[in-house]
Amino acid sequence: MKDRIRKDDLKEKVMSAESAAMLIKDGMIVATSGFTPSGYPKAVPLALEKRVNEGEAIGITVLCGASVGDELDGALTRCGVMKRRYPYQTNNDLRNAINESQVSYQDMHLSHVTQFIDYGFFGKIDVALVEALAITEEGGIIPTTSIGLMPQAIKNSDMVIVEINMSQPMELEGMHDIYMTEKPPYRKAIPIEQTGDRVGTHYIPCPPEKIAAIVFTDIPDKVRPLGPIDEPSKLISGHIIDFLKYEVRKGRLPKNLLPLQSGVGSVANAVLGGLVNSDFKDLTCYTEVIQDSMLDLIDAGKVTIASGTALTPSIEGLKRLHENMKHYAKHCILRPMEISNNPEVIRRLGIISMNTAIEVDIYGHVNSTNIMGSRMMNGIGGSGDFTRNAYLSIFTTVSTAKNGEISSIVPKASHIDHTEHDVSVVVTEQGLADLRGTSPRERARKIIQNCAHPDYRDMLMDYLERAEKTKFKYQPHLLDEALSWHDRFLKTGSMKVDKNQSRDISDLIASSKE
Amino acid sequence: MKDRIRKDDLKEKVMSAESAAMLIKDGMIVATSGFTPSGYPKAVPLALEKRVNEGEAIGITVLCGASVGDELDGALTRCGVMKRRYPYQTNNDLRNAINESQVSYQDMHLSHVTQFIDYGFFGKIDVALVEALAITEEGGIIPTTSIGLMPQAIKNSDMVIVEINMSQPMELEGMHDIYMTEKPPYRKAIPIEQTGDRVGTHYIPCPPEKIAAIVFTDIPDKVRPLGPIDEPSKLISGHIIDFLKYEVRKGRLPKNLLPLQSGVGSVANAVLGGLVNSDFKDLTCYTEVIQDSMLDLIDAGKVTIASGTALTPSIEGLKRLHENMKHYAKHCILRPMEISNNPEVIRRLGIISMNTAIEVDIYGHVNSTNIMGSRMMNGIGGSGDFTRNAYLSIFTTVSTAKNGEISSIVPKASHIDHTEHDVSVVVTEQGLADLRGTSPRERARKIIQNCAHPDYRDMLMDYLERAEKTKFKYQPHLLDEALSWHDRFLKTGSMKVDKNQSRDISDLIASSKE
Repeated sequence: MKDRIRKDDLKEKVMSAESAAMLIKDGMIVATSGFTPSGYPKAVPLALEKRVNEGEAIGITVLCGASVGDELDGALTRCGVMKRRYPYQTNNDLRNAINESQVSYQDMHLSHVTQFIDYGFFGKIDVALVEALAITEEGGIIPTTSIGLMPQAIKNSDMVIVEINMSQPMELEGMHDIYMTEKPPYRKAIPIEQTGDRVGTHYIPCPPEKIAAIVFTDIPDKVRPLGPIDEPSKLISGHIIDFLKYEVRKGRLPKNLLPLQSGVGSVANAVLGGLVNSDFKDLTCYTEVIQDSMLDLIDAGKVTIASGTALTPSIEGLKRLHENMKHYAKHCILRPMEISNNPEVIRRLGIISMNTAIEVDIYGHVNSTNIMGSRMMNGIGGSGDFTRNAYLSIFTTVSTAKNGEISSIVPKASHIDHTEHDVSVVVTEQGLADLRGTSPRERARKIIQNCAHPDYRDMLMDYLERAEKTKFKYQPHLLDEALSWHDRFLKTGSMKVDKNQSRDISDLIASSKE
Repeated sequence: MKDRIRKDDLKEKVMSAESAAMLIKDGMIVATSGFTPSGYPKAVPLALEKRVNEGEAIGITVLCGASVGDELDGALTRCGVMKRRYPYQTNNDLRNAINESQVSYQDMHLSHVTQFIDYGFFGKIDVALVEALAITEEGGIIPTTSIGLMPQAIKNSDMVIVEINMSQPMELEGMHDIYMTEKPPYRKAIPIEQTGDRVGTHYIPCPPEKIAAIVFTDIPDKVRPLGPIDEPSKLISGHIIDFLKYEVRKGRLPKNLLPLQSGVGSVANAVLGGLVNSDFKDLTCYTEVIQDSMLDLIDAGKVTIASGTALTPSIEGLKRLHENMKHYAKHCILRPMEISNNPEVIRRLGIISMNTAIEVDIYGHVNSTNIMGSRMMNGIGGSGDFTRNAYLSIFTTVSTAKNGEISSIVPKASHIDHTEHDVSVVVTEQGLADLRGTSPRERARKIIQNCAHPDYRDMLMDYLERAEKTKFKYQPHLLDEALSWHDRFLKTGSMKVDKNQSRDISDLIASSKE
């Protein structure tokens, strides 16, 4: 305990998770640590769930950095405590509750969340509930495997509940770099000019009197398995690497590229993974989440510095990380998400952003969040923070979904998170479309020809050509048909025109030539 | 001439507009000064038009800061020289040519344009064609009433054609503050921390050997009349001012607010104009364009500093500006658009952004550019740069258009430039909807009840309530009906349900209760 609570008088704040959970009351706004299933509080949410299952009625608003593990998002949703949630999630039960409108949810740019807390736009934060590695002599709180919005939670709340997680290795100490901005009109330039710059402290400052409870736990981060890298992901990775090589040859990128950002998940992991066998070296990453492929890149000597706000390896990756923490700690920096996702820093460093899309339309608008326009998947996360401010913004998607019944390239996106103004490059396993400097109609042809699945290419060209015959030819659409592919999928289970109907694909193409 | 060309050996570069225009060849990429109809080159484009009208075939790509006057956009479009154009325009002939697909056009965030030039994403800039007040002893070029992308045009081109405009008053000298960023990985923090900070030179550096031609002209900026402030604009301005006062009372804004940004045009002018009679003082503006109402605010002692990239008064305002240039020069700073629109600076200063929308949907997605989804109006301009990075992002629109036949509040926007993630507040003459912290369904009710015109409120609620009965309740839509209002307008001239058809509004409402 001496290592973990270094300020003696704080030891009297140690209590059970059940006692700490009693500090959380109905109607409160609770902001927590955690980003992807890393570094989130676990024992107190489980104790809160228990209280409710024993009969108490409590409803709270929860703010997390991004997604968190089942002990928080799953447990509090199932017992009905979670009434409102910001800004990103990946938990099945929570996702279903959001789509059934049992939990109010606002999907936000991660870079907006921390300043909304500072600005008071969510209201007063009642409780900061955070996982920590240790508490320093001054009461400073050392995070564990993620930081997220933890600094702003602690700064803006009068009551801090700390879970000290004994399963988190002490070698994490020193990996964090905590820098927080002031509110306007007092905000200064963020002094980061290279990926690896350290500009802050290794703990989050916290007046000791704010610490209301300290709970010991050893529940490990509930990290997720990563699927094996499949063939479409390999093809996508290959297209991107070829493109980056071409940009280097053209003198538009330095030999060691610019800092890479890659979204979360299997495709994103595969994209970075492809770099392990490339000729690139001295790479850096300025991203949100450090996944398994980043460990591979560090081991291969390809990546010198990886900056993120969370360490989120797979189950196997976690073992590897724990066994070699000293080695990885030399190459990794964890930052608050206010900094990892900051437009100022992202634009200055000139990030190459790579994010996954649910669907992309022929004019380059990207849907990252709402399936068939209405069903929330996870959220926009940091994709907007990186994409808008990137040197090059790349979106990846496999060209079809649901065994080919859904085309990821559509006439008009059913929901739009990233507009045509923000998307430089679209990549599917079919190929890559470089959209820089193109008009909408040029863009449409590149996307259809290079990225769409052959099963849908003729249908897309047919739509485009018929739309081009209408009056307004800048970004031509057939408004009575633009969303019909999605509508057809909802009604028939396929975006393909039903072969049993009178108007099949060949009819459709024929009719365009009338 | 001594005042205007201060480096003697450059005087031999003086030539006629006709001779200078001969330097521009078919297929070239020409980047020009100018932002709104201010400070753009005039004599050389007119000479180029003459050449073409006399039989030569020339086609070029033109990059301007934003819109420019008819001598450039209009003339070169009418004679067919303009083949491709970036990133914003307001000229009728150019707009029509874009919508008829005679000119290829890409609508871009203004903050992206300058770095795309630096990065080589448009290809090599062949000619920088710029209007200047004077050339300094070192060959530095002093801009006139706007800066826009002029520094990057000069930096990235080997040939610079300068139009020295004798109609521009010498008192403009000293108003400019030229700071340019390096490309990543060498980019540094932009050292602006307050609206009025001066961090650069008052001229644009230019190696003298790049200057290929100097043309003297006295064609004045073709500024546009500003309409009188109408009743809806006054109501919108009043709602915003009430809201800002409320935010001050709640402690979420300082008494003198934060730097204001306001879009271009009559409504934007009216919004700022409303502040003249408010109790606010010591205001600053960090915006793109300094319009008439800003002069009023300076005269009333309300605004201490106005920073922009262009001075664009009305015809009357221009006279007033010229007569009192010394007075206004003390309160105004003109910056490159890379800086006026820079996400880093906008977020740091904590701008209150106010931009106009063509339409807003019930979930808060904004269309700023494409009428009925397809017809380009002007472009996104800087609205995305400010909105995404603002402390508060406000969108204004009059609730109906075309004598009430179009509702500006629609079930689903026919084109999206600003997503739900970027819009804090929506204001029409009907009222204001504060969307911060709301779920999509909460947002929809606020927008419909506070902002929609009463003629369309029931229709919107009917759509929402029927959509909420479908399976996915996060952001519910009826995909076969979502764009039907626009489609109906295109087919019948009204978004209202045709009274002659069997299913009128009352039927529609009745059917939702079945």
